Amino acid sequence: MLVMGIDTSTIQGGVALISGQGVICEYTLNVKATYSERLLPSIDRALRDAGITLDQVEGFAVAIGPGSFTGLRIGLSTVKGLVVAGGQSLVGVSTLEAMAWTLPFCAHPICPILDARKGEIYCALFRHEGDRLIRLMDDAAVAPERLLSRIQQPTVFLGDGLAVYEGLLQSELKELALFPPIVGRGGRAAAVAELGRRRLLSGYRDDLAQLAPHYLRLSEAEVKYAGRCASVGV
Amino acid sequence: MLVMGIDTSTIQGGVALISGQGVICEYTLNVKATYSERLLPSIDRALRDAGITLDQVEGFAVAIGPGSFTGLRIGLSTVKGLVVAGGQSLVGVSTLEAMAWTLPFCAHPICPILDARKGEIYCALFRHEGDRLIRLMDDAAVAPERLLSRIQQPTVFLGDGLAVYEGLLQSELKELALFPPIVGRGGRAAAVAELGRRRLLSGYRDDLAQLAPHYLRLSEAEVKYAGRCASVGV
Repeated sequence: MLVMGIDTSTIQGGVALISGQGVICEYTLNVKATYSERLLPSIDRALRDAGITLDQVEGFAVAIGPGSFTGLRIGLSTVKGLVVAGGQSLVGVSTLEAMAWTLPFCAHPICPILDARKGEIYCALFRHEGDRLIRLMDDAAVAPERLLSRIQQPTVFLGDGLAVYEGLLQSELKELALFPPIVGRGGRAAAVAELGRRRLLSGYRDDLAQLAPHYLRLSEAEVKYAGRCASVGV
Repeated sequence: MLVMGIDTSTIQGGVALISGQGVICEYTLNVKATYSERLLPSIDRALRDAGITLDQVEGFAVAIGPGSFTGLRIGLSTVKGLVVAGGQSLVGVSTLEAMAWTLPFCAHPICPILDARKGEIYCALFRHEGDRLIRLMDDAAVAPERLLSRIQQPTVFLGDGLAVYEGLLQSELKELALFPPIVGRGGRAAAVAELGRRRLLSGYRDDLAQLAPHYLRLSEAEVKYAGRCASVGV
């Protein structure tokens, strides 16, 4: 089954095409250009370079968060548009789970952390057990200090939250905080594609109309709107 | 230090741009098109998408094998051409070491294997220890059966050799043979870039004229040429 994976959860996003044979094409880009500019050209280029047409893609896997509100919205809207046109199967994949998936056979629990702004991180905890990934903690949006109390053993941290909180983790957790080299710090669209492909092969599909980003918090616009409604008594 | 990594050791090759901040751009392509067709366009595209000009790249890291004779030759020639023109630093990186680097914190020894044709594999053995990668065995070109005797504990195999020898490894080694998911099976240009960047930061540079692919065996053309020379008594 040929599956395209799309990850727009953070500024480091990408597109990947995988099949049972392996990764056919994977493109990761970590620049400030918005996904509305760069996502469709990346999809087009991946298909062209791989010599594959859109109707040969049998399923789409899309990262549904947590992560950037706008990024997730653009990724999901784009995939939904393609699926409406092409009729392929669609499945949403947890952004944090896909990040943990990139470190198979990891000897320690894995804690992906994303910078959620406002002094918070999006985080979760996983452990690889043989060829399975076990979730140890639900996705959460918390102050990093609240995560610290959950870490009782050496744990591998990855994700863009490190750019802000690596120093804090290091000074508070000491030798319990482990950090991967550069190659192991970001998410990968191929991981989104592979987790999605496994779910699609098991018969699972998400409903096109129902699938929504997994935000964990209200967006800034919603917070402001709620505030305005309250102030005028709506 | 901004470093471009280039891997043309196998059919799954790629280009990556990394800095101390992380992966800026990484492109992996696994198609039959030759590197003479696809390498320079990939380099050009990575730079353009990242908004970086060639003279901003401070160093080049190139995979020097073992691997495909033609692929390695094209990769190294291309990089040397760029370095002659731009004067950047250059460093060669072991293909098998870069593959093992993609699985940080791996709980088991890692054995990258590449299909060397003629019933042989290119292979080596590594172990992650903290943030260091320890080499347990020199690069070798051997019949896969000869590797089996070296495997005494659960070991993670990756690389394109799996396409041919996964069944053999599984039937001979049983539960000692571990295989990563799709995301962990191939090489990554970002790993070549990161290992090269570390070496460049430590002050090491390869000599432009001396750096050569690490072939381990004579090429088919050299074998035939030696045979012809012998038959005419040269």
